[in-house]
Amino acid sequence: MSNKKTTLKDIAVKLNISTAAVSKALRNDSRISKKTKEAVKKIAKELDYQPNNLASALRSGKSNLVGVMVPSTNSSYFSSVLQNIEEVLNSKGYNVIVTQSNESYTKECNNIDTLLFTQVDGIIASMANETVDLDFFEKIKTKGIPLILFDRGENDLNVDYIGINDYDSSHMIVDHLAQKGCKKIAHIGGFKHTRIFNNRIRGYVDALHKHNFTFIDDYVSESNLTIEDGRIQMKKLLALQNPPDAVYAASDYAALGALQVLKEENIAVPNTIALVGFGNEPFTTMVTPTITSVDQHSAEIGKIAAQTFLEYADKKTATQQLNKKILEAKLIVRESS
Amino acid sequence: MSNKKTTLKDIAVKLNISTAAVSKALRNDSRISKKTKEAVKKIAKELDYQPNNLASALRSGKSNLVGVMVPSTNSSYFSSVLQNIEEVLNSKGYNVIVTQSNESYTKECNNIDTLLFTQVDGIIASMANETVDLDFFEKIKTKGIPLILFDRGENDLNVDYIGINDYDSSHMIVDHLAQKGCKKIAHIGGFKHTRIFNNRIRGYVDALHKHNFTFIDDYVSESNLTIEDGRIQMKKLLALQNPPDAVYAASDYAALGALQVLKEENIAVPNTIALVGFGNEPFTTMVTPTITSVDQHSAEIGKIAAQTFLEYADKKTATQQLNKKILEAKLIVRESS
Repeated sequence: MSNKKTTLKDIAVKLNISTAAVSKALRNDSRISKKTKEAVKKIAKELDYQPNNLASALRSGKSNLVGVMVPSTNSSYFSSVLQNIEEVLNSKGYNVIVTQSNESYTKECNNIDTLLFTQVDGIIASMANETVDLDFFEKIKTKGIPLILFDRGENDLNVDYIGINDYDSSHMIVDHLAQKGCKKIAHIGGFKHTRIFNNRIRGYVDALHKHNFTFIDDYVSESNLTIEDGRIQMKKLLALQNPPDAVYAASDYAALGALQVLKEENIAVPNTIALVGFGNEPFTTMVTPTITSVDQHSAEIGKIAAQTFLEYADKKTATQQLNKKILEAKLIVRESS
Repeated sequence: MSNKKTTLKDIAVKLNISTAAVSKALRNDSRISKKTKEAVKKIAKELDYQPNNLASALRSGKSNLVGVMVPSTNSSYFSSVLQNIEEVLNSKGYNVIVTQSNESYTKECNNIDTLLFTQVDGIIASMANETVDLDFFEKIKTKGIPLILFDRGENDLNVDYIGINDYDSSHMIVDHLAQKGCKKIAHIGGFKHTRIFNNRIRGYVDALHKHNFTFIDDYVSESNLTIEDGRIQMKKLLALQNPPDAVYAASDYAALGALQVLKEENIAVPNTIALVGFGNEPFTTMVTPTITSVDQHSAEIGKIAAQTFLEYADKKTATQQLNKKILEAKLIVRESS
């Protein structure tokens, strides 16, 4: 073997195809046939071809990498969004790297720095519950790469956002519970500073008003909506002098925690207290009783987020405006209500 | 503001602290006080400090990034390992980026290239089911960065590996089912070319032999062990002339699929057919009946994997040998058996 570093051109000459085709084949581009890909990879191996991706990214200003930042990968919702982002982007020759914030603002800032460091061509993100200061997100914008937010986003950033209509979803849930005869509906909510949770709380309050139900301060709580949070809030609700006859939790995890407490206390669900979650996590169909929940169209949101990034990539621009794509959520009624 | 680029030293001089302390503060190192971190960040912002992480990584050969590659992030096992890797590494100033293979070999190869491209200081990985060819893993080794495998690893690579004793786990499960009076035990297994699944199958076969149970070819299957695979294999087992009286699935997902079919067919679990899964996923405690499963010590495995990386990082060497750390798995008996 000669000492000269093997180039894409060496491989192209050997196979009598274009350098671009070799490059595409090595990136597993779908436009190249399986046969050609195999031939290219065989020759690349024989000639000990070592791609210098970093140098090439610095030269071209393009890494073919997209960063995805989610609060947690261990959630069917975020996992499904991620899966669909990957499917769309992989088919266009992009690779995806993921970071999770665990709802921590500090970790989110570190993650943004990490993704920028890795020279991603764009970032698709859903914010941590803790996040109030948007400086780090502004930093992404100043780097001139597209930023697309989904689920937990912030209009103040003026970037593309994809989500569901949270305000309407709360109306849909309260309407459903009212129809089942419930009048004292509690809400285990997320933090008001997070827009989606704020919208769910606003929708809940307005829907109560619409049905002429009394708004009771003790019926509404704000938390991270974990299973444990659901347990804590359900116990508080049961300890009230006038406990609710229905609970609407803004996440399925909180609903699961609430259900655990209700079962431990031998309270009949839905007869004594009806229960509705949010997110349509698979476990809502596994537990007894199965939990009524709201489907957030995770697959569609992932696909739209990826396609939005691709539009900017094709136009080679990161000049963004606030394009909001709001999908209608769907209530899936199960045994718990 | 002057045109001169702000350096760490500018910030250090302003606060009368060392450059190293400024650098640590900006990386959120735990050794720096909250007060100092805030002061550093305030000055950094005032002086418009722009870290050039990439240049610094190329200069120092250190990115403070560790790549984690898992088959899927949407699994409590992998998610818990990841969480614990992150906790240990974040506390030492490392950031973590994640890629998932979705059990695809092609995707795994792209992920390895992606992680190498991002200049990670090390890779912690669990292999895709499809993976047989180890060339891409060998490539990590030739780059001179530590590679640590967990759960699904390959001895032939001669790198550090952390996992549980899969062969013994199968014995533990068959012993338990035999004790419950089961004699016709089927195994919904993973692919034999993956070492852990091979070990589980070998353990199953040897344990049958130990108990003088007949080995029946039709009782053993190989698949990706998804919920859907569990459904398919359970239906095949029920269609046999001589169906089993117990099913040991090599993943909780496959066990869940099997349970769905058993419930649909009104087959009593555990009385007619007992069921055992593997992985101790949270849903095993949510379903009715709850599913007996094997705990794989995900938290401990994540911590050990991260610490193993840190040992190499401290020694500034990637000269590895095969250090196997094998933990004893724990059977958690629930209603399904």
